Amino acid sequence: MKHNFGAGPGILPHEVIKQASQGVIDFNGIGLSILEISHRSAEFESVLSEAIKLVKELLQVPEGYSVLFLQGGASQQFAMVPYNLLPENGKAAYLETGVWANKASKEAKYFGEVQTIGSSKESNFTYIPKDYEVPADAAYFHITSNNTIYGTQMQEFKPSPVPMVADMSSDIFSRKFNVADFSLIYAGAQKNMGPAGVTLVIIKDDILGKVNRKIPAMFNYQTQIEGGSMYNTPPVFAVYVSMLTLNWLKAKGGVEAIEKENNAKAAALYREIDRNSLFKGVSAIEDRSKMNVCFVMNNPEHEKPFLKLCDDKGIVGIKGHRSVGGFRASIYNALPITSVHVLIDAMQEFAEKNK
Amino acid sequence: MKHNFGAGPGILPHEVIKQASQGVIDFNGIGLSILEISHRSAEFESVLSEAIKLVKELLQVPEGYSVLFLQGGASQQFAMVPYNLLPENGKAAYLETGVWANKASKEAKYFGEVQTIGSSKESNFTYIPKDYEVPADAAYFHITSNNTIYGTQMQEFKPSPVPMVADMSSDIFSRKFNVADFSLIYAGAQKNMGPAGVTLVIIKDDILGKVNRKIPAMFNYQTQIEGGSMYNTPPVFAVYVSMLTLNWLKAKGGVEAIEKENNAKAAALYREIDRNSLFKGVSAIEDRSKMNVCFVMNNPEHEKPFLKLCDDKGIVGIKGHRSVGGFRASIYNALPITSVHVLIDAMQEFAEKNK
Repeated sequence: MKHNFGAGPGILPHEVIKQASQGVIDFNGIGLSILEISHRSAEFESVLSEAIKLVKELLQVPEGYSVLFLQGGASQQFAMVPYNLLPENGKAAYLETGVWANKASKEAKYFGEVQTIGSSKESNFTYIPKDYEVPADAAYFHITSNNTIYGTQMQEFKPSPVPMVADMSSDIFSRKFNVADFSLIYAGAQKNMGPAGVTLVIIKDDILGKVNRKIPAMFNYQTQIEGGSMYNTPPVFAVYVSMLTLNWLKAKGGVEAIEKENNAKAAALYREIDRNSLFKGVSAIEDRSKMNVCFVMNNPEHEKPFLKLCDDKGIVGIKGHRSVGGFRASIYNALPITSVHVLIDAMQEFAEKNK
Repeated sequence: MKHNFGAGPGILPHEVIKQASQGVIDFNGIGLSILEISHRSAEFESVLSEAIKLVKELLQVPEGYSVLFLQGGASQQFAMVPYNLLPENGKAAYLETGVWANKASKEAKYFGEVQTIGSSKESNFTYIPKDYEVPADAAYFHITSNNTIYGTQMQEFKPSPVPMVADMSSDIFSRKFNVADFSLIYAGAQKNMGPAGVTLVIIKDDILGKVNRKIPAMFNYQTQIEGGSMYNTPPVFAVYVSMLTLNWLKAKGGVEAIEKENNAKAAALYREIDRNSLFKGVSAIEDRSKMNVCFVMNNPEHEKPFLKLCDDKGIVGIKGHRSVGGFRASIYNALPITSVHVLIDAMQEFAEKNK
């Protein structure tokens, strides 16, 4: 039994994995694998429409938005967002909260002017900048809601005078938020929604059509909307597993219910980090992420033996990102609270042995 | 037992499906699903490097080429090819052998001039144009090696005076060819290589760097080469199943061995189409595809009952594309010759009943 704290591709619900494995052998009893059916078959079309319906239901997506399942990950969205939304003589505002936010803004520079209106780079992104002002003449304002590497998360979304675009790859479906506050939301599936290979995009239809450049079909949100995410062959299996995962979330009581669990998991783990004198958190307390809990040890020499103890207990994926060091416990939706307690027990056991 | 003649996503080898299903439950006995491990883990890195090695081995890829596993399908390559290879004041030559070839050239028009040097559009693409001349000043010449919808296939690749680019989505790994004749080859996986969601690109390194435009990271072959197909999170599972499929092909004796099987399957089926007076082929005999066998019935009223008979025998996916009608039997690598004989038997049984 492994306790999977990996940052992503991350843990998926046990039931989903069982269903997915069965679907690879025989999808819904049709005598064919989900891997070898046409994306134009009635069977797959109902998977895709169910997945879209679940996204709309779980996030209470208002009218006037389209839900897309695309390929290329969030990194492709870094380019598609300005390709579709940033006029050649326009500018876009970006909040720099980590290397991913930074990569997003770098891509936008190929298409127009970029104004970085806030940054915590000078502190290695340990906090979320808050005293920024969004210029009223920006085409859009781009944020990263959760920063996996540094364990920071925007606790609230301030209203923006211009269309707000969010990379929610690592915290979508983990907590309630108001889709209507955003004009575009995108998220790689591989944290809370499914396996790597598919990317969710939720887009307000009326923000499109405002740039003049010609956009190749695959990079054009309009084409993808008109094709119903099937302009070309979609990543069938990744969409299927996403549908299963969203169904699992719905059965658990939806986002509201999982948010309570996520709050309890995060609270328990941060409590131990703050209580246990061997450990300390790395991010500003008010910006702590409820998805990625980053911490180090006061005595760096303790880190290797602690990692060994974790390994012995089946705790995997908690090594911190090289740019931060220490540990990163990713506690995504599918991670049971029992796994968090196994980690807490390991921290206490290690402290006991190293008093 | 189904006989899967679907055009794609198409049939995968039975052993591969079993292995893939097991990998979803527990990948290589590590206690985690292939769906929930990091793409930076040693486990996945060895999957990716094995997949690349198998491509190089099976196709005898010469030195100086890079092998990439990307997202977005062939349709994304339609845009990436001109993005990276077509200078703003340059032109590219395209051979129009079907709607996919046509879509490819349409994307190129966003980036430069396109010259269609041959087309069989006037006959609804029933043949491959042969009396074309590739202009010596073209940046590249683009072909589609096999046309699934019409059942045509280029039987040989004439040398080109300029870099040749091929969409081989529907016949790569089905027959021997000389990679060195091409500067870039791309193929969506979902016919002969794996499930939907990953795209193979084989690119000659020295054709890059010849355009001046700025290319966003994800659309830039150079970034993808430097990142070793891991500039961002790759489609882990689709790469894994591709690796399994390529391994299966290697164990069968590689491309040379499968080509013999494919030739035998195609010969048997075309023989019956030509022999059986109820049926007729739709494409020019000299251009007949060994992957997609398209045929109609002399009496259109026979088509519905014949489809019913096929259905009764577990033959699935043989309905022709709406733009051609009739039937399309896709006989990809993984389709056993026994399935072809089941189809031939059905054709004979139907003819017997309808004498």
